[in-house]
Amino acid sequence: MSDLAGCPLCEGDGGALVWRGERLRVIHADEPGFPAFHRLIWNAHVAEFSDLTEADREHCMQAVALVEQVLREQLEPDKVNLASLGNVVPHLHWHVVARHTWDSHWPAPLWAAAQRPRDAEREDGLAARLPQLHQALRERLQHWARPFTQ
Amino acid sequence: MSDLAGCPLCEGDGGALVWRGERLRVIHADEPGFPAFHRLIWNAHVAEFSDLTEADREHCMQAVALVEQVLREQLEPDKVNLASLGNVVPHLHWHVVARHTWDSHWPAPLWAAAQRPRDAEREDGLAARLPQLHQALRERLQHWARPFTQ
Repeated sequence: MSDLAGCPLCEGDGGALVWRGERLRVIHADEPGFPAFHRLIWNAHVAEFSDLTEADREHCMQAVALVEQVLREQLEPDKVNLASLGNVVPHLHWHVVARHTWDSHWPAPLWAAAQRPRDAEREDGLAARLPQLHQALRERLQHWARPFTQ
Repeated sequence: MSDLAGCPLCEGDGGALVWRGERLRVIHADEPGFPAFHRLIWNAHVAEFSDLTEADREHCMQAVALVEQVLREQLEPDKVNLASLGNVVPHLHWHVVARHTWDSHWPAPLWAAAQRPRDAEREDGLAARLPQLHQALRERLQHWARPFTQ
């Protein structure tokens, strides 16, 4: 793994760690208004998705799809948003965000202007499901990763 | 392919067609301020990335990475942004956008508020390179897709 001095995703987890594998980790992000905001972070410092080898890209997107699938099963979102931007922190990370029609920004991207006030009650309801979600994510990611670590 | 009545990405190309394969197509989007905005659109109507089979997900992301790579080679962007949102049009499509430090929104996401006025001269300079970019995209995507159509 290549660490880059000064890169916040090399020097720290980048959020509340949910699961760490050899090549990538999943964190829960503290993003107001979006209780089910997660990031999948490639452990090594690479800037662009196409900097990865094809094998690593497949590994990465298998994990992205798995996180998305578990979010869908556990939270029944109206949509999942995936994004790899990295303009501010050019260390490969995928935003994986469960979106709901009641959220403050729906149907706009979460980076756009809010469409309505936040719904604290529904946000709290979603947040209450995070422990079970994170347990499910750990189990599924660990099961998925097992063949790579043998 | 399953078409959905009323879905703009089932009923049309969704932009200026650059290349069409059996499973996906690449279009150039007319998005003011971002001359190098492309979308990779899955031809069949599926909403979420994890609705695809693993083989189709790999196929999809091979193409996303290839489009990103050609954009990097041809346009030397400061960053490429990838996103699959679909809140408004829930038909799987990937935004693949070449970002530059001079663009109106840098380093914010392109859906956020602008950070500065648009630079018409540099936008025009980027737009002038699109014919060559699109030719390169067609050649590379066609070469990549050949094994799948034999």
